[in-house]
Amino acid sequence: MRPSGRSPDQMRVIEMIPGFTRHAEGSCLIKFGDTHVLCNASVEERLPPWLRGKGQGWVTAEYGMLPRATHTRGNREAAKGKQSGRTQEIQRLIGRSLRAVVDLEALGERQITVDCDVIQADGGTRTASISGAWVALKLAIEKLKANGAVFERDPLTTQVAAISCGIHEGAPVLDLDYVEDSAAHTDGNFVLTGNGGIVEVQATAEGAPFSEEELLRLLRLARIGCANIFEAQLKAVA
Amino acid sequence: MRPSGRSPDQMRVIEMIPGFTRHAEGSCLIKFGDTHVLCNASVEERLPPWLRGKGQGWVTAEYGMLPRATHTRGNREAAKGKQSGRTQEIQRLIGRSLRAVVDLEALGERQITVDCDVIQADGGTRTASISGAWVALKLAIEKLKANGAVFERDPLTTQVAAISCGIHEGAPVLDLDYVEDSAAHTDGNFVLTGNGGIVEVQATAEGAPFSEEELLRLLRLARIGCANIFEAQLKAVA
Amino acid sequence: MRPSGRSPDQMRVIEMIPGFTRHAEGSCLIKFGDTHVLCNASVEERLPPWLRGKGQGWVTAEYGMLPRATHTRGNREAAKGKQSGRTQEIQRLIGRSLRAVVDLEALGERQITVDCDVIQADGGTRTASISGAWVALKLAIEKLKANGAVFERDPLTTQVAAISCGIHEGAPVLDLDYVEDSAAHTDGNFVLTGNGGIVEVQATAEGAPFSEEELLRLLRLARIGCANIFEAQLKAVA
Amino acid sequence: MRPSGRSPDQMRVIEMIPGFTRHAEGSCLIKFGDTHVLCNASVEERLPPWLRGKGQGWVTAEYGMLPRATHTRGNREAAKGKQSGRTQEIQRLIGRSLRAVVDLEALGERQITVDCDVIQADGGTRTASISGAWVALKLAIEKLKANGAVFERDPLTTQVAAISCGIHEGAPVLDLDYVEDSAAHTDGNFVLTGNGGIVEVQATAEGAPFSEEELLRLLRLARIGCANIFEAQLKAVA
Amino acid sequence: MRPSGRSPDQMRVIEMIPGFTRHAEGSCLIKFGDTHVLCNASVEERLPPWLRGKGQGWVTAEYGMLPRATHTRGNREAAKGKQSGRTQEIQRLIGRSLRAVVDLEALGERQITVDCDVIQADGGTRTASISGAWVALKLAIEKLKANGAVFERDPLTTQVAAISCGIHEGAPVLDLDYVEDSAAHTDGNFVLTGNGGIVEVQATAEGAPFSEEELLRLLRLARIGCANIFEAQLKAVA
Amino acid sequence: MRPSGRSPDQMRVIEMIPGFTRHAEGSCLIKFGDTHVLCNASVEERLPPWLRGKGQGWVTAEYGMLPRATHTRGNREAAKGKQSGRTQEIQRLIGRSLRAVVDLEALGERQITVDCDVIQADGGTRTASISGAWVALKLAIEKLKANGAVFERDPLTTQVAAISCGIHEGAPVLDLDYVEDSAAHTDGNFVLTGNGGIVEVQATAEGAPFSEEELLRLLRLARIGCANIFEAQLKAVA
Repeated sequence: MRPSGRSPDQMRVIEMIPGFTRHAEGSCLIKFGDTHVLCNASVEERLPPWLRGKGQGWVTAEYGMLPRATHTRGNREAAKGKQSGRTQEIQRLIGRSLRAVVDLEALGERQITVDCDVIQADGGTRTASISGAWVALKLAIEKLKANGAVFERDPLTTQVAAISCGIHEGAPVLDLDYVEDSAAHTDGNFVLTGNGGIVEVQATAEGAPFSEEELLRLLRLARIGCANIFEAQLKAVA
Repeated sequence: MRPSGRSPDQMRVIEMIPGFTRHAEGSCLIKFGDTHVLCNASVEERLPPWLRGKGQGWVTAEYGMLPRATHTRGNREAAKGKQSGRTQEIQRLIGRSLRAVVDLEALGERQITVDCDVIQADGGTRTASISGAWVALKLAIEKLKANGAVFERDPLTTQVAAISCGIHEGAPVLDLDYVEDSAAHTDGNFVLTGNGGIVEVQATAEGAPFSEEELLRLLRLARIGCANIFEAQLKAVA
Repeated sequence: MRPSGRSPDQMRVIEMIPGFTRHAEGSCLIKFGDTHVLCNASVEERLPPWLRGKGQGWVTAEYGMLPRATHTRGNREAAKGKQSGRTQEIQRLIGRSLRAVVDLEALGERQITVDCDVIQADGGTRTASISGAWVALKLAIEKLKANGAVFERDPLTTQVAAISCGIHEGAPVLDLDYVEDSAAHTDGNFVLTGNGGIVEVQATAEGAPFSEEELLRLLRLARIGCANIFEAQLKAVA
Repeated sequence: MRPSGRSPDQMRVIEMIPGFTRHAEGSCLIKFGDTHVLCNASVEERLPPWLRGKGQGWVTAEYGMLPRATHTRGNREAAKGKQSGRTQEIQRLIGRSLRAVVDLEALGERQITVDCDVIQADGGTRTASISGAWVALKLAIEKLKANGAVFERDPLTTQVAAISCGIHEGAPVLDLDYVEDSAAHTDGNFVLTGNGGIVEVQATAEGAPFSEEELLRLLRLARIGCANIFEAQLKAVA
Repeated sequence: MRPSGRSPDQMRVIEMIPGFTRHAEGSCLIKFGDTHVLCNASVEERLPPWLRGKGQGWVTAEYGMLPRATHTRGNREAAKGKQSGRTQEIQRLIGRSLRAVVDLEALGERQITVDCDVIQADGGTRTASISGAWVALKLAIEKLKANGAVFERDPLTTQVAAISCGIHEGAPVLDLDYVEDSAAHTDGNFVLTGNGGIVEVQATAEGAPFSEEELLRLLRLARIGCANIFEAQLKAVA
Repeated sequence: MRPSGRSPDQMRVIEMIPGFTRHAEGSCLIKFGDTHVLCNASVEERLPPWLRGKGQGWVTAEYGMLPRATHTRGNREAAKGKQSGRTQEIQRLIGRSLRAVVDLEALGERQITVDCDVIQADGGTRTASISGAWVALKLAIEKLKANGAVFERDPLTTQVAAISCGIHEGAPVLDLDYVEDSAAHTDGNFVLTGNGGIVEVQATAEGAPFSEEELLRLLRLARIGCANIFEAQLKAVA
């Protein structure tokens, strides 16, 4: 039995609130149960120096966690004067995942930055971030179109979503919450595209190593989870 | 006429949502119109080294702004590696304001940190922060009591609230929004207590200097505004 | 009775030594009793990027305290690797105060930076800094004129000075020294212009809140103090 | 055909030089072709504060790249004042991989830090680092034993090695060098243990997503590569 | 002819003002012509952790330059967030030079920090700093004695002074000012003790290398200069 | 007797391995006994902004020490976030020493950076760095010529080498190793050119001051040592 009472392949309740803030070109508050992440996409009509004049745009992401998003208060990264290795790892993953479904040439010479800020954490903040960031990105591109930007082809090639799976008390389970995550022997994050491809697999043994068979079972659970997220994303941007 | 159509002594709609997040001992999302600040109070049963063994507690605050809380995206302070002078000024003000209504000896040897994170900004983020921080602080102290902490006397001596006033197009007005704030010739922040005292006055001429009479008119508006906030605070913690 | 034996509306001895250093375009060592601040104004015929091409100049300030300006040695900010929140707050205040009496368009596309370095501290370093910085600024502008710079109108519109006042042992007093400042229940800094206007009021209750009446009494003391400083400034630049 | 002329499942020449430096308790220069990494294990008989008194030890890793290890000179991280996100990601991975084969309780209350410094880079520096770090760690533990440390059971439970695999010009290939790595559409790093378990899988699509079948083919290549590395490790520590 | 009209072995006018500031245990403003350095010695009755319990004290120094000490304004190191290599080099030299004449065991378990802050610069700031720092250090130790500290033997074993010499337009000259320093082909700093010993020699060819004979001629000039400084030091502390 | 059994004027075995790494334009691993430094010269066909358009090039150096180059592990400077004063002092010395034998105008508008990274330390790392850096620089310039760069005259005017000497147990000795260096009463670093000139002398008394006679004896030893190094350099670049 899972601590939450969920079945092994059951996700937490997904909620997506588009337009949660008003200034961002695209905004979405995403909830995977008690994990709440605010994703804001900002469009800038200029590129970082190293990308200028190459006939393409850029999509990047930044990630942060409010100090009291967690059970005990963490230090504020701005006050400490640097982002942790964990933060940098996550924001690099979000950026790569988004770019996997963006046609950068079609986007044109502009940059979209998606800020993913964790308001409340209960496990799975990076996968919720990727899943919500796609909604914010989609809304921002729709707003560009509504404001007259013309694209030769859609800069978004498909959807992207992510979910964590792990082996908890010997059993593969979908969408770990904090309690499960702390106890899981193997923990994986899977980023999948709307057309069935895999963008990223990160699976880590916390204690004993895992087997190829276990890896495949986690991947199958991830497919189930992402199917749910894809559906929720489409509703959110409708 | 004010850009928002409000009368000179009319505040924006105030909304306070207690318990907005679940981990913090006290939590409140405060809205002054389109300015939204999440205030989370965290209780720690230990003190910074310089305060230990003095028979008193401590209350402090930190302030941050999500990168896209504003009209155009600002750089993330954690990524820049330091907090701006403005950020430090504001969080010092919030801390001072709260301590003005806390009996630190009655609090006992514990520290309460109130994080004020601006989710969406439309002027007045520092005054909304102070006003919401009081609610978070009050809830945290109530939770301490509910969990069995015993205080000889109430650590909170009264309420504290803050509001901005300014001279806009020659007229003193209450609770400046971003459009007014950008155009105001004089801009003041007033921190008042529930029993009529003044905790802090910060009034600044942006262009031409102001007169003593103008200062007093701003202060009178501030009293009106804070009366509204005090009422909303009581409802929120009820 | 005040610890120093001064009457409530009596300032410490003011001394201003213009030309204290030889390289700065304008230089003044200002003394408010045992508080000594070296103010050096540097003219640069170029602007920070964000101000270029706007047909105006800029005036800014930086503030520092020598490590042993105080009773016990403080850490050197350069060695710690960052300026404290207090330092940033003060240097922002000095810059704002100076700009309140500068016609930036008349100044033309150049920047004047006034460095205020505290050689010895005994309370009131920020107000001494503002008062001495005006002298350094005035001397620098005179030097510009002497060197052939032509201004359509005087870039300095009037004088600016600042003084602290506070409530010490229940009585409003002018120009707090360190001993009074440490014990004062309310502490205010007032920045006034030569033509009677108020540029900035910052009044803070350290313990019990203060009343409107007390605020006004502090302001009246500040007018007395600034009148003295204005007179000393004129002598210094004569 | 691969640019290097290697067959798809052919690794570069592996060389391991144990004892490359004399001060470290365990030292190994590892070469995967033109990728050369110096791995030095340092034993300290004390633990970081958060681990003291828990009856276990700790193994951690740091990673660095000499500025001219690469085709064009990179900036020195010590001069820039911070480690890049990439550096932090890699050193966290090395540390996790080593801990997967260490019995921290058996190690006792001491810490072993393995420094992996890239002398020359040609792709695969993180996997060479992990593979060489195991040798340095093993040598350090043997030195502890030789110096009289007594372990109830061997702190090293098995070997660990890592290798990169990727899809280059449509074909899965083993042990990417820099030219292949730059052109690969999918790139994976696999960390395996000497008894056949998987410690970590990190597979990333650089362009088009990849399929489950491709993931499995990369994993199979990784098993071939790690078998070679395990053999070389045993020779190096013999 | 030297630009200043001085003869080759002629120093600039030396002035030392003891007690320039009032809080430091020892204070001296030293002037080598237009080079003015404020030296403040601070006594602390505790040691840095690595020196505790070793039955000895410590003497160290910090160096800084006010932003407008020089012909054109330099950036403030506190604002840049780090001390330059030049600053660190100089403060390490000052500390070493002072410790050469201090009997650290006789000093007892206390630390004296001498802050050398350049108020105005015209060449030779590091040698003026060392020479003035000795005066501040001597005064601080005398104050310790006056306040009742008892030393088995005098912690100051002798005097220490420093002077720069260089080869300017082919001729060895004593005590370079800024104009000479900028043009000198060889530049040396010599630290000598009151009893004729050499503490430090730093001689650098800026263009063509120099010869052994030239090094000795510079050293002889330095002996002349330091004799003058030793005399001035004794007057200052009398 | 010296701890190593060497005679007073006997250097450690010198070894220079040119081409130790393959990407750098010039590379040399230099060994002074157990002190091993990797020197890599990188040519960039652009200059830092402050040197552009002046018809000359630039040569600079950076220095680093691998964390476990020493007997006990030191903290990684990249992780600490800043270079120590010692590191900065050394890299400035290396750069100055190299520029003493480079005709910057003849070099043309390009920059050569020599990275000196200490792989293993046993005293004398800065002098080994200078001596090895010259080899790397020479090889880089030869490579430029081989690749078609045309110089009006040779940018390298002569050789440069450096060696440490010191007074150990009362006797002047050449090329101090770590054991001697820790115990030496006076320690000097001498940088000499191939045509007999002195580029830099840095001699420091660690305890008792030293005399002019001792300085000269150290210098004479340094000439013997550098003669050996010059010979080894010529073999290495042949």
